Amino acid sequence: MKKQEDWKSIVLEGDKHYLPHISIDCVVLGFHDNQLRVLLLKPKQKEEWALPGGFVKREETVEEAGYRTLFERTGLKDTFLEQFHTFSDPYRTRHNLTRAEFKNIGIDMPEDNWVTQRFLTVGLYALVEFSKVVPKPNQLSDYCEWWDIHNVGKLILDHNHILDKALQSIRLQLKYKPIGYNLLPQKFTLSDLQKLYETILDKKLDRANFNRKMLSSKFLTYQEEKKTGVPHKAPFLYSFDVEKYNQALRDGLSGEI
Amino acid sequence: MKKQEDWKSIVLEGDKHYLPHISIDCVVLGFHDNQLRVLLLKPKQKEEWALPGGFVKREETVEEAGYRTLFERTGLKDTFLEQFHTFSDPYRTRHNLTRAEFKNIGIDMPEDNWVTQRFLTVGLYALVEFSKVVPKPNQLSDYCEWWDIHNVGKLILDHNHILDKALQSIRLQLKYKPIGYNLLPQKFTLSDLQKLYETILDKKLDRANFNRKMLSSKFLTYQEEKKTGVPHKAPFLYSFDVEKYNQALRDGLSGEI
Repeated sequence: MKKQEDWKSIVLEGDKHYLPHISIDCVVLGFHDNQLRVLLLKPKQKEEWALPGGFVKREETVEEAGYRTLFERTGLKDTFLEQFHTFSDPYRTRHNLTRAEFKNIGIDMPEDNWVTQRFLTVGLYALVEFSKVVPKPNQLSDYCEWWDIHNVGKLILDHNHILDKALQSIRLQLKYKPIGYNLLPQKFTLSDLQKLYETILDKKLDRANFNRKMLSSKFLTYQEEKKTGVPHKAPFLYSFDVEKYNQALRDGLSGEI
Repeated sequence: MKKQEDWKSIVLEGDKHYLPHISIDCVVLGFHDNQLRVLLLKPKQKEEWALPGGFVKREETVEEAGYRTLFERTGLKDTFLEQFHTFSDPYRTRHNLTRAEFKNIGIDMPEDNWVTQRFLTVGLYALVEFSKVVPKPNQLSDYCEWWDIHNVGKLILDHNHILDKALQSIRLQLKYKPIGYNLLPQKFTLSDLQKLYETILDKKLDRANFNRKMLSSKFLTYQEEKKTGVPHKAPFLYSFDVEKYNQALRDGLSGEI
């Protein structure tokens, strides 16, 4: 796999290798300092930031295109990644990639090139462990950085809408799937988990209720060791038990967790 | 709007009007005789039945393509329709529309025509009032009929998978959105509603619990009249209050209904 897309060949003969009219956009979320953060790119010559995205190869699923893009931007493999919505407004990409932008990186783009046509985009969200990500811009962008989801400002095209829809979807999912653990280190305290839920759901939760609900879910495994390096009482550490969760899914998991 | 697709022009010059590589498939569900039923087409020259589907026009969203298809197959407008997943296996359409099928309806299809290429499909589900539907086959199919979801047998391509995924999605949605009312007549009894929920969720529900939950949801409006023509005690009729539900959504609906 090429580590970096070669835009010249993408523009000039990319539609041999990629499907026209279909792209992906990734909402990559991490959790740090009790903030939910989203990974954004700063395209060259543009004021606004953008979600990392890409095209779909002719022999790829949209999820495979998502994993490939995620690897290129973060260095991560085997992350939690799921599609949540397909955005198909016919005018959503009207002001997308322009000839001027490509001129700037030395590519003389023919008029009505396939990359300037209408694109539907499949939105995928990835939940990643913040500390493991090494953000990396692509050839068309200057920076790749984490932003607090509350401070992203105006993004390019319909990317604010895509981000909002991803957050809505995650909030609903969190009610019946323990997806949050993907955002935490392998071992975490119940208090870490509660802060994460509070941040995603954007509201305070009752501690006793939360702990009871989580512990009764049976998907948390108690770890022998306690958290070290903290003052006062050392809290217990837990990890998420994928095997027990998958078993419960096979047995017909019902209700909220 | 044309009432019936003209397949000859679709095949020969359809890619001027439709996007290549992108289709939609509709899981149209109705509720009748305490069965959840799905609307299927029987393609000419094929053993297996198929979900109604179609292409996406160059100036259409996938949802608009869905409403158009739904209208052509059912005669219904303004139905509940929502996308639930995009299916993108590169080999999913390998055995799709063949030259023989088109030959059969008098169309001589050029080799490697756009309709025989790879298609991603956006799955949409529609919940409709059974009695209002007038099923109508298209030019490539002999029949358009309702099937009990438990008896559909082997469908073409990945349509069984698409149907399963739609049902999974509806079961989850039912927990937090009162989508079920779309499947009932405007006025219904709590017992009708319970049977519907039991059918979709494929399990028995406790009557007292169910009634309490539904009535406390505040989205049901009590109707003065009672159901007539039934023996014994006449049960009360309710209708779904869209306005109250929309208000609750604006106020930040939380938790299960």
